[in-house]
Amino acid sequence: MKVAVLLSGGMDSVAALYQAREEHEVVSTLSFDYGSKHNHKEIPFAEHHSALHGIIHHRIPLHFVNDLFQSDLLKSGGEVPEGHYAAENMKKTVVPFRNGIMLSIAAGVAESDGAKGIVIAAHAGDHAIYPDCRASFMESMAAAIRTGTYAEIELLRPFIGMSKAQIAARGAELGVDFSQTWSCYKGGDIHCGACGTCIERREAFMEAGVKDPTEYRDLPEIPSAPCVS
Amino acid sequence: MKVAVLLSGGMDSVAALYQAREEHEVVSTLSFDYGSKHNHKEIPFAEHHSALHGIIHHRIPLHFVNDLFQSDLLKSGGEVPEGHYAAENMKKTVVPFRNGIMLSIAAGVAESDGAKGIVIAAHAGDHAIYPDCRASFMESMAAAIRTGTYAEIELLRPFIGMSKAQIAARGAELGVDFSQTWSCYKGGDIHCGACGTCIERREAFMEAGVKDPTEYRDLPEIPSAPCVS
Repeated sequence: MKVAVLLSGGMDSVAALYQAREEHEVVSTLSFDYGSKHNHKEIPFAEHHSALHGIIHHRIPLHFVNDLFQSDLLKSGGEVPEGHYAAENMKKTVVPFRNGIMLSIAAGVAESDGAKGIVIAAHAGDHAIYPDCRASFMESMAAAIRTGTYAEIELLRPFIGMSKAQIAARGAELGVDFSQTWSCYKGGDIHCGACGTCIERREAFMEAGVKDPTEYRDLPEIPSAPCVS
Repeated sequence: MKVAVLLSGGMDSVAALYQAREEHEVVSTLSFDYGSKHNHKEIPFAEHHSALHGIIHHRIPLHFVNDLFQSDLLKSGGEVPEGHYAAENMKKTVVPFRNGIMLSIAAGVAESDGAKGIVIAAHAGDHAIYPDCRASFMESMAAAIRTGTYAEIELLRPFIGMSKAQIAARGAELGVDFSQTWSCYKGGDIHCGACGTCIERREAFMEAGVKDPTEYRDLPEIPSAPCVS
């Protein structure tokens, strides 16, 4: 199937690109420059992996998100909180309906590029604090994309049954150079090691038994995940 | 309910704004500058009606649509076809998944603006040739927006049971000055009178028995609607 891949430049989506190349014909990749503190660090990795495989990469500017939306993930927002991803304070990093916006644009681009599917690296560990990561959202969005396009474009979530650690293991098998991926929400020179995504990245490599090639500024003890009601 | 209103500057969405002011608290309006041939004509009317009622108007630039999408509605596309909207050649004016993209962005803005609903002027006469106007799309998209936002934002379609002529009549009752709205896809100095939206606009005023204040370049006979299988 011809597919377009959502490619942030993070470890999950880069692994999803490599996996998609095994199973599909990847016609394009998409990154969204929505004004987060770390877009300038992650998108060059999306470009790198696309170029490596000769795939057209679309960098979609969404500057209105930074101007109009409330989120500490954005340049216009406050400090990125530290600690475990599942903690209540991580809610501040939610960008309202971000997955809905990215998937909708991907659907339009995919229809224009002649693709029949969109690949997103959603996985089993995606966070209940993010409403637009939940299964009920994803299933409704998939139906909206299927019914709202001529090509009846399918939303593909190849990693939905996998943990982030399993994705790290699969990516390593597929030859992903994880030093060429970015997670840290703070968007500094190197990964901070302490924010929600850095904690999650460190955990994933450890659990997978895959060597973590990342240079971290700090390596605080990994907090245990709080209970999420 | 606090609502955000999708406001293109066309007759339907302007009427929807006036109707929403009767029933809800309108916190903001949204127009999308996606590179169509007529955005520069319609968006100033969206600004006008928002300003008239002291409502914040967001003009969202989506220039990537013109760059990446295939559609004769766009500046990057071919000539806008003439004739009846339901005709097969009008497919060329489809902008892939436009409603999905606009509604998704509206959901994010609405969540940031503290709104609990999004109003779209979808109506009974919306065209089967546009997949993202169909009921199955709208219902799935509504579910995606409800489940994908903290506020469980509702998608409101106050005109879904009405024809465009009924909207014209309702707008007239609500005091809409239809001379301050724009339909023509060609985006010239004045309405062309011959493209699909101009035909539809002319028909709506005639059927509603509402005086059409529009200056048209040409007034070709209105073709009968072809059968749509």
